[in-house]
Amino acid sequence: MAVVFLSITPLGTGTPSVSTYVAGVEKILRGTQLTSQLTAMGTIIEGDLDEILAVIRKMHEHPFTQGAVRVSTFIKIDDRRDKPDHSIAGKMRSVEEKLR
Amino acid sequence: MAVVFLSITPLGTGTPSVSTYVAGVEKILRGTQLTSQLTAMGTIIEGDLDEILAVIRKMHEHPFTQGAVRVSTFIKIDDRRDKPDHSIAGKMRSVEEKLR
Amino acid sequence: MAVVFLSITPLGTGTPSVSTYVAGVEKILRGTQLTSQLTAMGTIIEGDLDEILAVIRKMHEHPFTQGAVRVSTFIKIDDRRDKPDHSIAGKMRSVEEKLR
Amino acid sequence: MAVVFLSITPLGTGTPSVSTYVAGVEKILRGTQLTSQLTAMGTIIEGDLDEILAVIRKMHEHPFTQGAVRVSTFIKIDDRRDKPDHSIAGKMRSVEEKLR
Repeated sequence: MAVVFLSITPLGTGTPSVSTYVAGVEKILRGTQLTSQLTAMGTIIEGDLDEILAVIRKMHEHPFTQGAVRVSTFIKIDDRRDKPDHSIAGKMRSVEEKLR
Repeated sequence: MAVVFLSITPLGTGTPSVSTYVAGVEKILRGTQLTSQLTAMGTIIEGDLDEILAVIRKMHEHPFTQGAVRVSTFIKIDDRRDKPDHSIAGKMRSVEEKLR
Repeated sequence: MAVVFLSITPLGTGTPSVSTYVAGVEKILRGTQLTSQLTAMGTIIEGDLDEILAVIRKMHEHPFTQGAVRVSTFIKIDDRRDKPDHSIAGKMRSVEEKLR
Repeated sequence: MAVVFLSITPLGTGTPSVSTYVAGVEKILRGTQLTSQLTAMGTIIEGDLDEILAVIRKMHEHPFTQGAVRVSTFIKIDDRRDKPDHSIAGKMRSVEEKLR
């Protein structure tokens, strides 16, 4: 299982607001069966790495269909194979337990 | 106002688990007045950029006090100055409105 | 054409040195026809985005074959479609011209 | 010694080209004594971490003086304290030796 942080940003769109583009790519992700969490700085996705990368590829393409000509996509993969519970909830739990 | 994504990871610690280190740096952040949100892939902080960078510097140092000899720190700054409501909640709201 | 920055780091290995792993993934990249540049903080690759992502997927897998159980892979894609000369050399030239 | 990868990108400018902004921030860096290397995806800086972060703070501010209202700055710190030769050249050498 992998947990992946993703941020997709169009450049040169003439407006500093990117929320329309972020909503557009988020809709593609929410159309899949993958578990994800939208955050203020990007979206976090958990699951099979190849499934995640395939949907990221579609998400990366989307701003071009909305008129962008340059897209900066930022992917941080945390791929752990010694722990079956490597998930968004599992990672949060293992830190929060140590904060009590 | 800036919104900053931060991830601090020690390398070469002999164990693939980093939650002890993550909890250690998170405690430093929670000792400040800054608004932040812990996520599975890093922590998101909002506020004055210089205040944020000052606490990040302390957080970056912490794993060395726990025996790490190499630390990889990852900082993504979203600094927007045309919109007073540039915050974790404000950024989430502007995307979620477009997802309804 | 896309230009992509890639950094692959195993976590939890008993040593803070990762150069053996970096050399291992770099050999996979150099076995392809893609133009790339090794730097001190990661490797930069130019070419067709899907070709790049395919080799990155193989590169990401490599540390697991060397005994790592957790791998952190960071990918930054700069995908620009309004400029045919969007390449490592083209991007460097357009900045250096403005530094003279 | 730390080795730091830095990429500064203005958002919402009317043009997808950012080379003018990149050249602007690179001039600030080259006005210091820090050793750095410009690459196609960002600039790599080596030296004392606090000196590096101080100049990064100035560099981050620069696009706002050129009319940008939103700036995305990405910083990746590789801070290693068990090896005196932790530098751009030292990191390259330790990988290249293993590629021969």
